[in-house]
Amino acid sequence: MKLAMIYSFLKNDLAVIEKAVNQTIQSDNTVLREASSQLLQAGGKRIRPVFVLLGGKFGDYDIDRMKAVAVSLELIHTASLVHDDVIDEAEVRRGEPTIKSRWDNRIAMYTGDYIFARSLENLSVLENPRAHQILANTMVELCLGEIEQIKDKYNTEQNLRTYLRRIKRKTALLIAASCRLGAIAAHTKSEYERALYQYGYYVGMSYQIIDDVLDFTASEKELGKPAGSDLLQGNITLPVLLSMEDPKFKNDLEIAFERKEDLTAEELQPLIAMVQSNGSIQRSLEISDRYLNKAYQSLAKLPANRSKQTLKGIARYIGKRRA
Amino acid sequence: MKLAMIYSFLKNDLAVIEKAVNQTIQSDNTVLREASSQLLQAGGKRIRPVFVLLGGKFGDYDIDRMKAVAVSLELIHTASLVHDDVIDEAEVRRGEPTIKSRWDNRIAMYTGDYIFARSLENLSVLENPRAHQILANTMVELCLGEIEQIKDKYNTEQNLRTYLRRIKRKTALLIAASCRLGAIAAHTKSEYERALYQYGYYVGMSYQIIDDVLDFTASEKELGKPAGSDLLQGNITLPVLLSMEDPKFKNDLEIAFERKEDLTAEELQPLIAMVQSNGSIQRSLEISDRYLNKAYQSLAKLPANRSKQTLKGIARYIGKRRA
Repeated sequence: MKLAMIYSFLKNDLAVIEKAVNQTIQSDNTVLREASSQLLQAGGKRIRPVFVLLGGKFGDYDIDRMKAVAVSLELIHTASLVHDDVIDEAEVRRGEPTIKSRWDNRIAMYTGDYIFARSLENLSVLENPRAHQILANTMVELCLGEIEQIKDKYNTEQNLRTYLRRIKRKTALLIAASCRLGAIAAHTKSEYERALYQYGYYVGMSYQIIDDVLDFTASEKELGKPAGSDLLQGNITLPVLLSMEDPKFKNDLEIAFERKEDLTAEELQPLIAMVQSNGSIQRSLEISDRYLNKAYQSLAKLPANRSKQTLKGIARYIGKRRA
Repeated sequence: MKLAMIYSFLKNDLAVIEKAVNQTIQSDNTVLREASSQLLQAGGKRIRPVFVLLGGKFGDYDIDRMKAVAVSLELIHTASLVHDDVIDEAEVRRGEPTIKSRWDNRIAMYTGDYIFARSLENLSVLENPRAHQILANTMVELCLGEIEQIKDKYNTEQNLRTYLRRIKRKTALLIAASCRLGAIAAHTKSEYERALYQYGYYVGMSYQIIDDVLDFTASEKELGKPAGSDLLQGNITLPVLLSMEDPKFKNDLEIAFERKEDLTAEELQPLIAMVQSNGSIQRSLEISDRYLNKAYQSLAKLPANRSKQTLKGIARYIGKRRA
């Protein structure tokens, strides 16, 4: 089952948002237009707009207000992807060459800044100061998450707490904010807004853990990059963190990491094979499941409707996704 | 006369803002704290907060509201400086950033993003949707200005219109927004708000033109970099644009520019000497003076008070500054 089928009843509204995202980052600047359209083609699941719309279904759902918020959150995400690609080894994202490999890094950086700014412009349509506070705070946390990730590259002295804080900042808070801002745009009861925020947070945590697991379990074709890419770049994710409980694994990893950027995929292969077979994948999925269960529990506070069923379906999908 | 003496009556309020800027970008993240404190030491004239405070003096001046706006604008400016420094030519060796500078660059980029986000957080204290719209739009234009500047490097087919649009985006609009947001925070009459915006725009245009002139006329000691640095980096500013009316100058410049980053200060020296002596400096200053006169005219719509005198004094200072 494809994710898009779960929320197929949002198809028309998502098309409106897709169009608005396109229009918003159009510009009469040639360089920017080319860079932007490349991004748009690369696309993505538009999962943040989906959460915004679903959150709005628990209140007074007005497509113009929903659109303002959904476009804003998709653009924040897009901008962070653009900056993620700046000065990065990553030449390819989702099978498409990154902006950086075709234009220089400076253009990519300012394109990211430009998209951030467009995101804010979109949100200001809402005329709601609290929405701005939430978005600004989410961005602050997102940046701290990125900085922590850079700082902790090749650092084997990490623990579960620092990992969970990082994925919260890098992924979960933006999904939580999507659910919440959708609710705010639709003036839902504050009780629903809180429940949606919690759901988004827990689902986001699970989503990122599974992303980190898939880096080891999915095929190169599914991922669009070789297995173990995160580890090759020095990023220590949950399966690696759990694998490090084995002193031999940790020691071998530290030796490999001494070579930093010179480390090759071949050299790392034995360690990747260990992560794949030592049970840490299963344990990671169990941790993900705990978050998913909390996501389901959060939904209990919401009234029964199609949106609630869909949120359940998305959580179920995330728990089972393999790419 | 020093600029700070012109607005010495704001000294106490500026100290409040200085402290708030410091506190705002403090963080419990070590890397970020180090990067930030370096920035704070670099400091600057805090000219944007000055314009915010002066704008607020035409309405209901509340220090907490003024502070929110002033800190926000200073942080936007700081963030753009940080991003301006990312991927500095000096850190590139054989066309490739070194490992160390690549790491530093990523940190610098996210530090800039973080400061942007903190700026938004600060502004949201104001609970005024229009303030967000103005700030977001100013950021959009700022980014477009940066992208245009990169795109137009070493491009001799530029005209006065493209130059003026670029400095408007890169400099004038942020100063105009500072005056305007100061007015908005103080709930001034919309007539005053418009006059302040116009003043800021015209003063900002003049400020940047004189900055571009000083790159040719100030001493290396005054500038902190050799004369003609802008041109050496391929940036075509007003004095060069006017010099290009001479076909021989334009032709010589095009030949020099073929070497792009390999061009040396010595090779460029004859062209710099021509810019310094062919009358284009004087003509640039005349264009700057036209903007300054418009800035004075904008002030005519404002009631007489100490702030108005100070705005006049700043315009006069800008017209005469030599470093």
